[in-house]
Amino acid sequence: MALLSEADIIRCLSAGYPHRADVPLGIGDDGAILVPPPGRHLVSVLDTINEDVHFPAGTPPAAIGHRALAVNLSDLAAMGAEPAWASLSLSLPEGQPGWVQAFADSFRQLAVTYGVTLVGGDTVRGPLSVTVQLTGFAEPGRCLTRSGARSGDLVVISGVPGRASAGLGLIQRGDTGADGDQDGLREAFLRPSPRVRLGQALIGIATAAIDVSDGLLTDLERVLEAGGVGAVIELDQVPVSDEAVAALGAEHALGLALNGGDDYELCFTLPAGGIGELPGLAEQGGCPLSVIGLIQEGAGVSFRRDGEPVAAPGTRSWSHFDGRQP
Amino acid sequence: MALLSEADIIRCLSAGYPHRADVPLGIGDDGAILVPPPGRHLVSVLDTINEDVHFPAGTPPAAIGHRALAVNLSDLAAMGAEPAWASLSLSLPEGQPGWVQAFADSFRQLAVTYGVTLVGGDTVRGPLSVTVQLTGFAEPGRCLTRSGARSGDLVVISGVPGRASAGLGLIQRGDTGADGDQDGLREAFLRPSPRVRLGQALIGIATAAIDVSDGLLTDLERVLEAGGVGAVIELDQVPVSDEAVAALGAEHALGLALNGGDDYELCFTLPAGGIGELPGLAEQGGCPLSVIGLIQEGAGVSFRRDGEPVAAPGTRSWSHFDGRQP
Repeated sequence: MALLSEADIIRCLSAGYPHRADVPLGIGDDGAILVPPPGRHLVSVLDTINEDVHFPAGTPPAAIGHRALAVNLSDLAAMGAEPAWASLSLSLPEGQPGWVQAFADSFRQLAVTYGVTLVGGDTVRGPLSVTVQLTGFAEPGRCLTRSGARSGDLVVISGVPGRASAGLGLIQRGDTGADGDQDGLREAFLRPSPRVRLGQALIGIATAAIDVSDGLLTDLERVLEAGGVGAVIELDQVPVSDEAVAALGAEHALGLALNGGDDYELCFTLPAGGIGELPGLAEQGGCPLSVIGLIQEGAGVSFRRDGEPVAAPGTRSWSHFDGRQP
Repeated sequence: MALLSEADIIRCLSAGYPHRADVPLGIGDDGAILVPPPGRHLVSVLDTINEDVHFPAGTPPAAIGHRALAVNLSDLAAMGAEPAWASLSLSLPEGQPGWVQAFADSFRQLAVTYGVTLVGGDTVRGPLSVTVQLTGFAEPGRCLTRSGARSGDLVVISGVPGRASAGLGLIQRGDTGADGDQDGLREAFLRPSPRVRLGQALIGIATAAIDVSDGLLTDLERVLEAGGVGAVIELDQVPVSDEAVAALGAEHALGLALNGGDDYELCFTLPAGGIGELPGLAEQGGCPLSVIGLIQEGAGVSFRRDGEPVAAPGTRSWSHFDGRQP
C-alpha cells in the first residue's frame, strides 16, 4: 500500500475528535486558538516517549498511541487537573497507513474517554518518537503537588505497582504468552490506565501526590524531598501482583512493585484521620488503594516487615542518563 | 569531563529564567500551574526539529537551541500572538556538559528576548531531537490567520527569503566560509529571527498571514487555499539576497527565494489601501517589507516578469514524506 504524505498523516491523526467550544481554531493554521475557562488555572505537562528507550521496537502502534497520551494524562492526574487540550508531535521514519491509523485510533480513543481534543502538533520524519503536550484545568490553589506531606500522614498507592515492568520484561524476553498467561502484565505495560478520576477526587484530601512513572520508591523519595520529611514503608502492605509472583517469584515481584517503572499509578499522602475516605476514593478512582506506610520526621525511606526494621529489598537500577532515572 | 545526569541537565536547562507572576508553579512538579490572563485568548504552537532532517549533524548546540525556539516563535508571530510560556522536550544521546550548556544558554537568550519563560518539559535519551510547545496571548477575535486574503489584496513578504536555504546548502557542502564570505547566509539558517514584533503589528491590518517555513510559494499557496483565492507574483519584486546571487547566481538565488525553506519570514496580505502602512510596519517589525504580488480571483499562483506572464521559475523539490513538504 502506498505510503502516506505528511498531509495524509495529519488528516488521519486529526480526524474524529469532538468539537470543544473552547477551541475556536484548531488544527490547520500556524497555531491553535484556545479560550481558557474564566477564573480557573491551567496545568501544562509534556512528555516524550522514544522507541528503544521507553518502549521496545516492534511495540504495536495502538499501544504507542495509547501510552503517549496516557503518560501525560497521568501527570495531569497527579496534579488533580481536568484534561482538556492536547498537542501531538509524531516523528516517524515513514507513513505506513496501517501503522498511522492504528496509532491515531488508539490515541483518539483515550483522548475522547477523558474529553480531550487534539488542537495541534507536528508530523516529522525521523526516528520513532512521540511528544505530547497536554493542558488541563484546575481551581486556583487547589492543585495537588509533591510538596505537602507532613509527619503522621499515611502513604497510599493506587492499583498494583510493578505489573508494567513485569510485563515489559516478558515482552523484552519475547514471551508473547500465546496461552494467555500473564496477558494482564503485558497490558499493564502496553495500555496503562491513567488515574485521572482518582487525582481529581484527591483534591482537598491528599496532602501530596505524584505519579509513579520511575518506580514507587524513586517517586516517593521526590515527595519526601519536596516535603522535607521521611517515610517508613511496611513491606507486608505493598500490593504485589499475583501474576507477577507466579511468573517471577515473590521477592522479584516485590522488587518490581517498589522499583519497577512505567506503572502510572498515583502515590499520595493524606492525614491519618482521612483513612475513612479511602473506600469512597477507591470507588471514585475505579482502582484499589493501599496504605503502605507512614510519613515521619527525617528524610528518606526506611522499611519494616512484620513490624521489624529491615534493609531495603531488591536493588534499584540507576543509570547515568537513561531517560528515566534522575 | 563527566557526563551529566538527567537531573543535571534539567538544572542546566531551567536556570536563569526571569520569574513570571502568571507561573505560580514551574519546573519541578508533575506539571506547571499557569494563570491565563483574564479576557484574553491563548495561542498554542508546537514544532519538532530532528537531527539530519531539520538540521545537519554537527550543527552547533547554540544554533539548535536557538532554532528550536525560533521556529515556534515564528508560528506565534504568524498569529500575531504575544509569546509567554514554553515547554521543552530535549532528546539527546548523552549529556555532554558543554553541549547542554551551549544549547540551554542560546535557548534562554532568545526566550528572554521575547519575555518567554520555561515552565516545564522532558529530558530523555534518544536520537537528537527537540520539541517545543509555546503558548502566547491574543485579544479575542484579533488573531492573524491564513484564511482572510481577498481579491485585490497585496502580497507582502518580510526580510529576504531564500537566505536560510542558501546557507544550509553552504553548510551541507562543508563550505565553512573561513574568509567570512556568506556568513550572513549561514547565520540565516543557524539563527533565524522570528518576526514576533511584526506579527503583533499586523493585527487589524493584515487580512491573512503565514510564516514561511516550507518555502514562500508553498506557504503562500496555503494562504490562497484557505482564502479560496489565487495570486499573481511579480518576479522582479521578489527580494533576493545579494550574497546568494554572488554565491549561486541570480536564477538559483531567485529559485531559493521562492522555494527554499527555513526562512521564518512572514508572508501576509493587506488591502491595497493599506500600502501606506508598510513603512511603519517595517519599522515596528525591524525588517524590510516587500510587496511581491496581488491576490486575485481564482486559485493557485501565476507569475509575471517585466509585466509579462511567465512560467513558474525553478523547481520545487517534493518528497513523499520528508518532514517538511505536505
